[in-house]
Amino acid sequence: MTPAGSGKTSSPKVLALSGGIGGAKLDLGLYHVLDPWDLAIVANTGDDFEHLGLTICPDLDTIMYTLSATSDEAKGWGRKDETWACLEQLKALGGSSWFGLGDKDLAVHLYRSALLREGKSLGEITASLFARFGVKAHVLPMADQAVGTIIHTRDGRDLPFQHYFVKERCAPEITGFTYQGAQTAKPPAALLDIIRSGDLRAVIVAPSNPFVSINPILSVPGIRAALAASNIPVVAVSPLIGGAAVKGPLARMLVEMGLPATNRSIADQYKGLLSGMVIDTTDKGDADTLQDLPVLAVNTLMNSLEDRMRLAQDVLEFADRLRE
Amino acid sequence: MTPAGSGKTSSPKVLALSGGIGGAKLDLGLYHVLDPWDLAIVANTGDDFEHLGLTICPDLDTIMYTLSATSDEAKGWGRKDETWACLEQLKALGGSSWFGLGDKDLAVHLYRSALLREGKSLGEITASLFARFGVKAHVLPMADQAVGTIIHTRDGRDLPFQHYFVKERCAPEITGFTYQGAQTAKPPAALLDIIRSGDLRAVIVAPSNPFVSINPILSVPGIRAALAASNIPVVAVSPLIGGAAVKGPLARMLVEMGLPATNRSIADQYKGLLSGMVIDTTDKGDADTLQDLPVLAVNTLMNSLEDRMRLAQDVLEFADRLRE
Repeated sequence: MTPAGSGKTSSPKVLALSGGIGGAKLDLGLYHVLDPWDLAIVANTGDDFEHLGLTICPDLDTIMYTLSATSDEAKGWGRKDETWACLEQLKALGGSSWFGLGDKDLAVHLYRSALLREGKSLGEITASLFARFGVKAHVLPMADQAVGTIIHTRDGRDLPFQHYFVKERCAPEITGFTYQGAQTAKPPAALLDIIRSGDLRAVIVAPSNPFVSINPILSVPGIRAALAASNIPVVAVSPLIGGAAVKGPLARMLVEMGLPATNRSIADQYKGLLSGMVIDTTDKGDADTLQDLPVLAVNTLMNSLEDRMRLAQDVLEFADRLRE
Repeated sequence: MTPAGSGKTSSPKVLALSGGIGGAKLDLGLYHVLDPWDLAIVANTGDDFEHLGLTICPDLDTIMYTLSATSDEAKGWGRKDETWACLEQLKALGGSSWFGLGDKDLAVHLYRSALLREGKSLGEITASLFARFGVKAHVLPMADQAVGTIIHTRDGRDLPFQHYFVKERCAPEITGFTYQGAQTAKPPAALLDIIRSGDLRAVIVAPSNPFVSINPILSVPGIRAALAASNIPVVAVSPLIGGAAVKGPLARMLVEMGLPATNRSIADQYKGLLSGMVIDTTDKGDADTLQDLPVLAVNTLMNSLEDRMRLAQDVLEFADRLRE
């Protein structure tokens, strides 16, 4: 896949499957250790939602702000040097203000929503946005069609992800997940081309939440099958450290789903897909529980850019060893 | 008409027909010299338009910001202490940025648009917005239905008002106007109640542009007839001073329409409706050209709040004399 004007003629060498915050950290590491155009990222859009008439794509935006160094690193989402004049006014008017819409961030939503209304595809818009933000990697939404992660709760409700995550702060107990619209969604042709190009050195499953970040991607017909049919090493980086997620409700979700909060549970989510798994040194004892799956135990906590780059390098070298 | 919770039991005493900038100046004068709940304003919504998925009502907002002392008086539109982070980012992305959307102003558009999508009427939303801004006067959009002022140009185009006014900066030569949707629009019941209440002391046609501010209001079926059928003095304040408009393209529009830029041309626009006309002292010689129409010549230029209040008082007293 060669975007117009990129001047790049070869196909990407590494494909990452990624959600937002945690995934974007490793994406950034990969972006820095690779020639940027050698990196392709397929991003979860199961969190996307309509809010105040805007189409909001939280994971795509987190990845975009992270790779372009415009993200609020402390918060983990949104823009750095953000202002909140609009949201404060909206709150004063009694309008819907549960979702944090910064003034700059809002421009991205207005821009994307306007182009969607004009009939442009999410993939085209994403390419245009990332280019405007100066990101020199291939970032693809998992589908142009809407695929919405629905959270089924113990109290019998079906909540779109952002309602569960932001509005209800992950309070409702979970009984399951549905990826609404997945059956009729189509994988991006560019993604299938990348997987089938023969040029991929590795596929990295970023340390994102399997239920609400990676499985939605794999729910799009054709993506899992294309990965499984390839002989590219597929390496997952576990989002758990010592049975806890660095950020977000993953550990709790596992327990509510009746699963232990262990690396084994993560590996089971990707059954039949993985060539290897990267876990934190804290959990190196887990290697035994992962049966025949090759395991690399390294420091997976990413506080600094150096941590991100080192982990990215470790993961790539591990994948290379799996290939040999 | 008594809005819930206003604690006001009597009907308004003065009704103003108003466009944005110029009209809002006199509205503010009336708001200050009257008991505020004694003032009703019917606002032009012919300038309303859809932009970036938002329903924008420039005249309603200008009136709201003006009466609530939150307007940018120097600019004449928008909010004071406004910030522009969103618009600047939108511009950087190559998005549509020809319309000046401030960050605070944007919240009003998001709020209104969301409620319209939920099925609330423009009238209800307007009442709620003005209440949130602390305005204690009855402000009604001329109709809940969309009525769009279309500018017909010499080069054969039909431009929605904001495109003509903001995007093309009034450059195209005008050949006529259409108020699209007017035929099927309905006047607000509250407006007809006010006109028929028997409580009105005066109807003031604010110094707004007849073609693109006042005639759109009068194009809504029933409004002109209700005014004509009443015996309330209807007084127009001319927007011209010495054949020029204080602001905006009125003088030019008159010339392009083949009409002299005179108070007579303004009066002709309101034929059969007026009990009297207020013109600037500069133009007191025009009284002869206005035939039998009673004329008050005073200083109509409104630079300060005092100017606005003085003119409002002059106009009200003139209307009272016309009644006697």
